[in-house]
Amino acid sequence: MHKTTTIEMEADVLAENRKLAADNLRKLRSKGVRSVDVMGSIGSGKTALIVRLAKELKSKGKRVAAIAGDVTGEDDYRIFKGAGIPSINLNTGKECHLDAHLVNEALDELRLEEYDVLFIENVGNLVCPADFPLGTDHRMVVISPTEGDDMINKHPMIFLEAEIAVLNKIDLLPHLDVDVDRLKADYAKIRKGGTLHMTSAKSGAGLPELLRALHLTD
Amino acid sequence: MHKTTTIEMEADVLAENRKLAADNLRKLRSKGVRSVDVMGSIGSGKTALIVRLAKELKSKGKRVAAIAGDVTGEDDYRIFKGAGIPSINLNTGKECHLDAHLVNEALDELRLEEYDVLFIENVGNLVCPADFPLGTDHRMVVISPTEGDDMINKHPMIFLEAEIAVLNKIDLLPHLDVDVDRLKADYAKIRKGGTLHMTSAKSGAGLPELLRALHLTD
Repeated sequence: MHKTTTIEMEADVLAENRKLAADNLRKLRSKGVRSVDVMGSIGSGKTALIVRLAKELKSKGKRVAAIAGDVTGEDDYRIFKGAGIPSINLNTGKECHLDAHLVNEALDELRLEEYDVLFIENVGNLVCPADFPLGTDHRMVVISPTEGDDMINKHPMIFLEAEIAVLNKIDLLPHLDVDVDRLKADYAKIRKGGTLHMTSAKSGAGLPELLRALHLTD
Repeated sequence: MHKTTTIEMEADVLAENRKLAADNLRKLRSKGVRSVDVMGSIGSGKTALIVRLAKELKSKGKRVAAIAGDVTGEDDYRIFKGAGIPSINLNTGKECHLDAHLVNEALDELRLEEYDVLFIENVGNLVCPADFPLGTDHRMVVISPTEGDDMINKHPMIFLEAEIAVLNKIDLLPHLDVDVDRLKADYAKIRKGGTLHMTSAKSGAGLPELLRALHLTD
């Protein structure tokens, strides 16, 4: 096992990713597109939340596009298309996260000048995406109360990396035995003074506040 | 970027893992311990399911131990201890899966001759653990209906790797708009003739059938 080589190569890969991420951000900003990297576990409701946020934004005259990232298949991509959101599908093969290189290629396929907002849905897990910024204005992590009230404490890295955190599916709270105060307290401990946003993509609760926190509406 | 080197090194790492996994399985079997690698996303209910299965097994006179795998912290480990299950805590640091090497070290700490069954709870995600067998009799993947009815289709690799799949938290079904038949059909397509087991760690539904499928009870 080549431990030193592995660490050096990992540093190479992360440095290369950061360089490409900076390129992506420059490209997006030069076309006036605000962008959000949407991370979170399977079932946290990332896709539904993006669809609902896009609807709110459209009603305010904003033009929204999306990139759907998954290991394989195009389930989320189809949902975006079905909701009338121009989208690109990215499959990572065996990788558990998008990277700035994949996103760079997708940006070349999108007519960026036609959009105001781009949501990039990352691969569903809370570990791998943390190390690979994609070059977006915001990184947002979406969690669900079904993930248990110890889940923020278990995954500090991604909450440190993402400056916006959302507890989605709050419509399920009455059916679950989850200590929301513990989630809030764990989050506030990791990000001093940070607010855990509360939303329901189903009912629409909390979406206006979230859009303001993302600086996508006034 | 050193693409060829990366692929060669990855092959090295996987081959080394397989070798250690075979050692682990030999060690466990030589002491008469049956073992299960429990995989699944955050919030699928792996910890609660293991606690409940352990309780059922204890009531039949079986001695159960557990290994709790997490990126950081010891939340699950504490839950196992609180439930009276002798346990070892394993933190993977930045790795998104346990590997046979970490488990090998944990096995040296456990007095294997004192147990009949060992549950190893893997790090919570559906991508990374697939490639790293730990050397257990069974690999089981636990999913929750809150993860959406497209989730099996999105993660074929882990369902191919694990010969037991469980839809847990079926007590939540009345509150969710999830097509269980689609999940069952997608699973049967990936593993010809495979049964998606249905359980609730909360109510206890489906646990006797699952224990029989794992050959842990008659």
